[in-house]
Amino acid sequence: MKLHLSGERFNVVYRLTGDEADVRGKAESICIDQTIEFPLDLLPEGHIRDHIVGRIESLAPLDGQHWEAHISYAVENTGFELIQLLNAIFGVVGISPGVRLMRMDLPEVLLRAFKGPRFGRQGLRELLGVPDRPLIATALKPLGAAVEDLAGFTYRFALGGIDIIKDDHMLADQPFCPYEERVKRCAEAVRRANRETGYRTIYVPTVPGPVDRMVGRAMMAKDAGAGGLLICPGLVGPDMMRQLADDDRISLPIFYHPAFQFTYVTASDRGIAHHVLFGQFARLAGADGNFFPNYGGRFSFTAQDCRDLSAGCEVPMGHIRPIFPGPGGGMTMERIPELFSFYSREVILLIGIGLQKAGPDLVANSRRFRQLVEQAASL
Amino acid sequence: MKLHLSGERFNVVYRLTGDEADVRGKAESICIDQTIEFPLDLLPEGHIRDHIVGRIESLAPLDGQHWEAHISYAVENTGFELIQLLNAIFGVVGISPGVRLMRMDLPEVLLRAFKGPRFGRQGLRELLGVPDRPLIATALKPLGAAVEDLAGFTYRFALGGIDIIKDDHMLADQPFCPYEERVKRCAEAVRRANRETGYRTIYVPTVPGPVDRMVGRAMMAKDAGAGGLLICPGLVGPDMMRQLADDDRISLPIFYHPAFQFTYVTASDRGIAHHVLFGQFARLAGADGNFFPNYGGRFSFTAQDCRDLSAGCEVPMGHIRPIFPGPGGGMTMERIPELFSFYSREVILLIGIGLQKAGPDLVANSRRFRQLVEQAASL
Repeated sequence: MKLHLSGERFNVVYRLTGDEADVRGKAESICIDQTIEFPLDLLPEGHIRDHIVGRIESLAPLDGQHWEAHISYAVENTGFELIQLLNAIFGVVGISPGVRLMRMDLPEVLLRAFKGPRFGRQGLRELLGVPDRPLIATALKPLGAAVEDLAGFTYRFALGGIDIIKDDHMLADQPFCPYEERVKRCAEAVRRANRETGYRTIYVPTVPGPVDRMVGRAMMAKDAGAGGLLICPGLVGPDMMRQLADDDRISLPIFYHPAFQFTYVTASDRGIAHHVLFGQFARLAGADGNFFPNYGGRFSFTAQDCRDLSAGCEVPMGHIRPIFPGPGGGMTMERIPELFSFYSREVILLIGIGLQKAGPDLVANSRRFRQLVEQAASL
Repeated sequence: MKLHLSGERFNVVYRLTGDEADVRGKAESICIDQTIEFPLDLLPEGHIRDHIVGRIESLAPLDGQHWEAHISYAVENTGFELIQLLNAIFGVVGISPGVRLMRMDLPEVLLRAFKGPRFGRQGLRELLGVPDRPLIATALKPLGAAVEDLAGFTYRFALGGIDIIKDDHMLADQPFCPYEERVKRCAEAVRRANRETGYRTIYVPTVPGPVDRMVGRAMMAKDAGAGGLLICPGLVGPDMMRQLADDDRISLPIFYHPAFQFTYVTASDRGIAHHVLFGQFARLAGADGNFFPNYGGRFSFTAQDCRDLSAGCEVPMGHIRPIFPGPGGGMTMERIPELFSFYSREVILLIGIGLQKAGPDLVANSRRFRQLVEQAASL
């Protein structure tokens, strides 16, 4: 039999919680559970044992209770596509407390299977005409508002110079705010404002389900003048994001929203680290930027989580472009200098409610947001 | 403005952890975070405040540390489709520790939006010709085995009378086991065995990604003689399962695999209860049965988890059919009487490795599995 096994492997880092004997057993289980789920003693000598089963490359203590296991798998286990890659890395071990997926290190032969972000940081900057300051964004809210109100907000945000005006993730295709009408009206509002300002603001709608209508809806949005798409991979599936990102007929920047995925990251002894879920996976799925709840809010990620996420947005991954982290959630204009120094210039700063709270004149509030960021960036 | 709000609401039950003041605040936050994510004091009087915002219907103590909150939402918030329903119920509150989604109670106007399981318990029994005993299943393993070996296993399992022979969830479209060839050979093996036995065994392959090829691959599998499909909604997205289940050209039983979803259920103070994720959601997504790690294994659900999951498989949901729980994972033939009494007849008993461990003659082992279940069911 031809083996169809190149011998090339990829590495995955898991953080294990427990004492030394405990974590050794955990690492050995991962090697089996993430591959053959079959007793080694029933397995004949040969290629399955030698190649298919996961291999502990190293197991080193981080502190008294945590260990870092580097486990490698045959690249062929992934079928060279996103769904099976996720399955091969974390399909089963999520059941095991004390196992957290921390990072992955993919060789060129695996990375080649993915286009990654179409725009990335550089492409998005060129599209928006913003060469070096942080990008600024806001969200259309609230759920329940009528299309005409949202289009009015959009016009005023765009007139004030917000770069990215995105739908709130809860806006879908509800009877009180129909999708097609919203997209057309908000895209038109941005077009009108851009003609007045000379800016290149984009409107970024969601793409509501069902999944079999998403490609058509994304193309409708593109045709109507949308400048990007907001996708929740936790709801629609990460490979549906990839499909939308890869489709040359759509060819729009893709923004990641973490809806329905928070459970993966919130318990520190299990699940998936921000670095890999919102950084590395997001890039493989074609996101150009991602929005997440910034540290310091009511319910939010910690500062360390945010650093970890941002690192995942730019860690070298061959030809897969770096992308923008997009901290938001309860942010205010007063925090701009702090956030600038925390995230550097390579960030999308999202202020949603803060722009509405700053007073009744949304154009003036938006201008002030832009000016504060420009000032901070010019220092 | 026409409101497009019927006044109809659906109820969601969350279990909250904390003291009384704490959980009251949590419940109030859920009402906002799962809907408008907007400060109430900036909201004018009117329909958003009156209808769109979540409403605490009750908040009652379960014990000193746990409370049960019944929160209702306008049915229109869901857009009457699966993705936005999940978003409306749990899109954001997963970030909040101490909030676990326990149940949902959907009115007819929402249930009407879903076909649910095409076969359900009764339809699957008719398809398999098994009127009243538990169904029996096994898994094709291990990853790395060649197509000819898997087809050989399939033939022997079918000859021994296993009802459902499913791919291991790790089998996708790997170079060492190409999808199309595997499906054709294994389906042919089942056909051949059925001709000899008169049984109606089905072969249930996975449907590998990418997502844009899944419908085509499912139709190929159907044409080749596959008798069902194994889908991991955590990897492909729950609405992709629904699409495959709803497609009249495919028209095959759908089996749910929990890969990549374990993190949702394993921490008891957060995430999503087995009842709703693997029961109620699975049914809305069109699953006819689901496989999960039975209690009493190495890493597995608890007995209470399994009871909770099974209840979700049959809790009344209008026209949405009840489905089969499918406990497996480290199961042995010795446990059949115990499992029968735990789950009743309405179950798929899955023995994977146990069938291989029971001796070298897979036909004999499979016959014994069937006989033991028939005996237990005739008592």
